Amino acid sequence: MSGSPSESVPSTLSLGEVAELVSGGLEGDPEIRIVGVSALDEAGPEDLALFTSRRYTHHVAGSGAAAFLVTDETMARLGAGRPRVVVRDASRALIAILGRLHPVNREPAGIHPTAILGEGVRLGDDVGIGAYSVVGDHVDIGSGCRIGPHVVIGRDSVVGSECTLHPQSVLYPRTVLGDRVIIHSGVRVGGDGFGYATYDGSHHRIPHVGRAVIDSDVEIGPNSTVDRGSVGDTHVGTGVKIDNLVMVAHNVQVGEHSMLAALVGIAGSTRVGKGVWMGGQAGAINHLDIGDGARVAVATKVLRDVPAGETVSGHPARPHREDLSRQANLGRLPKLVERVKVLEAEIEALKRGLGG
Amino acid sequence: MSGSPSESVPSTLSLGEVAELVSGGLEGDPEIRIVGVSALDEAGPEDLALFTSRRYTHHVAGSGAAAFLVTDETMARLGAGRPRVVVRDASRALIAILGRLHPVNREPAGIHPTAILGEGVRLGDDVGIGAYSVVGDHVDIGSGCRIGPHVVIGRDSVVGSECTLHPQSVLYPRTVLGDRVIIHSGVRVGGDGFGYATYDGSHHRIPHVGRAVIDSDVEIGPNSTVDRGSVGDTHVGTGVKIDNLVMVAHNVQVGEHSMLAALVGIAGSTRVGKGVWMGGQAGAINHLDIGDGARVAVATKVLRDVPAGETVSGHPARPHREDLSRQANLGRLPKLVERVKVLEAEIEALKRGLGG
Amino acid sequence: MSGSPSESVPSTLSLGEVAELVSGGLEGDPEIRIVGVSALDEAGPEDLALFTSRRYTHHVAGSGAAAFLVTDETMARLGAGRPRVVVRDASRALIAILGRLHPVNREPAGIHPTAILGEGVRLGDDVGIGAYSVVGDHVDIGSGCRIGPHVVIGRDSVVGSECTLHPQSVLYPRTVLGDRVIIHSGVRVGGDGFGYATYDGSHHRIPHVGRAVIDSDVEIGPNSTVDRGSVGDTHVGTGVKIDNLVMVAHNVQVGEHSMLAALVGIAGSTRVGKGVWMGGQAGAINHLDIGDGARVAVATKVLRDVPAGETVSGHPARPHREDLSRQANLGRLPKLVERVKVLEAEIEALKRGLGG
Repeated sequence: MSGSPSESVPSTLSLGEVAELVSGGLEGDPEIRIVGVSALDEAGPEDLALFTSRRYTHHVAGSGAAAFLVTDETMARLGAGRPRVVVRDASRALIAILGRLHPVNREPAGIHPTAILGEGVRLGDDVGIGAYSVVGDHVDIGSGCRIGPHVVIGRDSVVGSECTLHPQSVLYPRTVLGDRVIIHSGVRVGGDGFGYATYDGSHHRIPHVGRAVIDSDVEIGPNSTVDRGSVGDTHVGTGVKIDNLVMVAHNVQVGEHSMLAALVGIAGSTRVGKGVWMGGQAGAINHLDIGDGARVAVATKVLRDVPAGETVSGHPARPHREDLSRQANLGRLPKLVERVKVLEAEIEALKRGLGG
Repeated sequence: MSGSPSESVPSTLSLGEVAELVSGGLEGDPEIRIVGVSALDEAGPEDLALFTSRRYTHHVAGSGAAAFLVTDETMARLGAGRPRVVVRDASRALIAILGRLHPVNREPAGIHPTAILGEGVRLGDDVGIGAYSVVGDHVDIGSGCRIGPHVVIGRDSVVGSECTLHPQSVLYPRTVLGDRVIIHSGVRVGGDGFGYATYDGSHHRIPHVGRAVIDSDVEIGPNSTVDRGSVGDTHVGTGVKIDNLVMVAHNVQVGEHSMLAALVGIAGSTRVGKGVWMGGQAGAINHLDIGDGARVAVATKVLRDVPAGETVSGHPARPHREDLSRQANLGRLPKLVERVKVLEAEIEALKRGLGG
Repeated sequence: MSGSPSESVPSTLSLGEVAELVSGGLEGDPEIRIVGVSALDEAGPEDLALFTSRRYTHHVAGSGAAAFLVTDETMARLGAGRPRVVVRDASRALIAILGRLHPVNREPAGIHPTAILGEGVRLGDDVGIGAYSVVGDHVDIGSGCRIGPHVVIGRDSVVGSECTLHPQSVLYPRTVLGDRVIIHSGVRVGGDGFGYATYDGSHHRIPHVGRAVIDSDVEIGPNSTVDRGSVGDTHVGTGVKIDNLVMVAHNVQVGEHSMLAALVGIAGSTRVGKGVWMGGQAGAINHLDIGDGARVAVATKVLRDVPAGETVSGHPARPHREDLSRQANLGRLPKLVERVKVLEAEIEALKRGLGG
């Protein structure tokens, strides 16, 4: 599929090469051949098995792996005599190892003959545009981009260099993408926001003359949407990662390196700070500030500003400790009812005693 | 991008023209040139800045705007000597001003040579159909419609006049749209509903022979879905506005001029009345009645009928006052525990006193 | 629309034929003609009206239906003299009746001249591929498949026999579908999961070298997404039904015949057992086990493992009885406060009495 990365035949590595690649400690025969990486319970005799969480210790004994990738935390639970590479950051090591075992072959450059380019489109070097894609007038596409088949880019949009647009993504007119942005299938950037004025018995659309501006190194997952601004722009900062089916409304600002998990919804004009984490199905109403480094637990509903660095949870969102304490108090309620019953009986007894 | 509105070079207005256009009160030089409209903190020397909420008063002093659009509520906080137009309804004024500064140039009419039209398709006057769109047999498209590129309209569908279908929207067969309907990218109207009968150990699809019927002046945001009815139709009433990533299930009825914010889900056969508001991530289970004019707060989960005019919130949904009161009671629980402790100590003392 | 089932002119049935078709009990004239099936309040003189829930008893008297489909539960409420067919399982009967009244005409086979097939594509017999669809290199498509227009199938994917891919669905490379799988418009199978390692101040993508494997008889509703696995596969088991706008994350396992309603989100590596029901807007965090036959109520947020057969609800999820009991306790809190007030007054009185 043009526009989507494809993979060449996997390479192999020796265990010694793995250790060197990830600057990890090696135990066992450095000549062991590694063809793939697997979960503990799926690993075959040429696989490096991931043992990076104690949660899966029970799978170790039966694992048929050639060797294990372990961390300081899990190392002791592996048992003696089993070949291993020990690393501090397993995810980081995994990126290096998989990058070598499964090198990505980029799609070739070139404009498919069925792609339709409007007037005044400017293309950088080494650009690929897939079958049936439609690029509007006066669009700029930077060098090294790979645009899949069935992509629609609206007029006057700007796509930076080395971006990947997966099949069936849409940029509405005047969208701006930075460099190395990855847009997955079904993503819609720049739709008109949900803004209406209500008078004379019906809702009238407020024109959305702002843009959706996506900075460099952003990735947006399948079927997520980022609306354009009404007056002023919607802005997604550098390095932000957005999961699937996420809604970023008009005039929202998402700070650098924040992460929005699946099905998150952020309402109009809310500012999400830098390095914020929002868990799946979390939401925030409009015109809020969520401070830098805040953590919003899964399914949390944010109805007020969140201070920088705060962790919030619950519906409505509260500081996480407070939310937990409320939950615990609620759980203790039956005991409290019992205590009140005892008190009532005792008072009754006391009253009888006094009256007798 | 054919099928999507594009904008011409913006016009300019004098401040006097702005005041006249919105029937607003003018203070300051009527000759001031206005080129754009901006937020307070982004406005340049040719911009009309929006100062329509006291929340943003702190941005007024530093604003470099040429003039301000204010309401009765914010007027007094602007400070003397700053040019302004005073209106009662800022959103309504905004529609008028933006409509003049950013007039929308409709895409030209005409059927792109790559569009594929089935047998017996009837087109009104002044219709535009974009590149690679596929229109099924016996589809009716009314006059003045603009169908973007990559749109699929299933057989036997009816599209009223002056509708806009954005790129990569899909109407399943036999879908009906009224006039002036706006369908955004990625919207799917008329999919088979989630209805199965379970027997012999598996789930069997119930045929969906109803339709999805969307009345006039409805707008449906990117990636939302409206399923067709199983027996009988799914129906979205006149003037309803639906945000992004909303799910309207089979046989749901949505009354006139209701609004459904992002990520709302309405389960099968539920009736949403007229003029209802449902906030983002709200949901309703199946076979409910949500009365006319009800307001369902963000993330509220409706498990029972909602009377007309009621405001509900929480999970499960309750009248909003009751939900607030329950939340408040929970917050006061630690104090109640303290009071019970005191009582226990006092009773203990009383018992000792009596016994002594 | 090629690739989508279309319907022929409806047939008619006599009431006697209906009864025979569903092995139901017949009361009334077997010669009554049935042209369609309707809801009670919409039925016309040639319709069989569905009266399968007591909830709708008030619509019976005014119904203009030719006859009624009733169950043991509703039969007595129909009133004497009205023609009826009595069945045990109304949904099952409905499938049989609608299948006869509205026989589905499959799209004809054949590859549309605008469809683009890569190198080494293998097609079974009787395959239909719609306009503008793009099939990558080395894709296998089984016999009897209907691929709609505007479908993109990534390289090295496998599609079993008799699958239906609706318009504008996308399979990322190396996706695997079993037989009789139905993929609705806007579904994205096989996108890279939301997995990053964070170091050096930014988030780095973990390569996703696993696949998304969808077993036979699965149906996935419009705009849902199933991500590929990072290491190892994401797996959706036989007979699973997924509604619209659902997120199934990387390395999730969904057991046979489970059902996921709209807007459900399941985070990475969580295992959903067999025959599980998850209601709309429910969610589960990562690395959990949801046991076979568990029922997760609408909007429930699962933060811990769920035992097999358990029904859970609430946020966070708890056994349903416990959740209800907590809700009820919270509702009784004002009364408890009153009781404590009374106790305080009584103690005060006792103290005065003792002291007096």
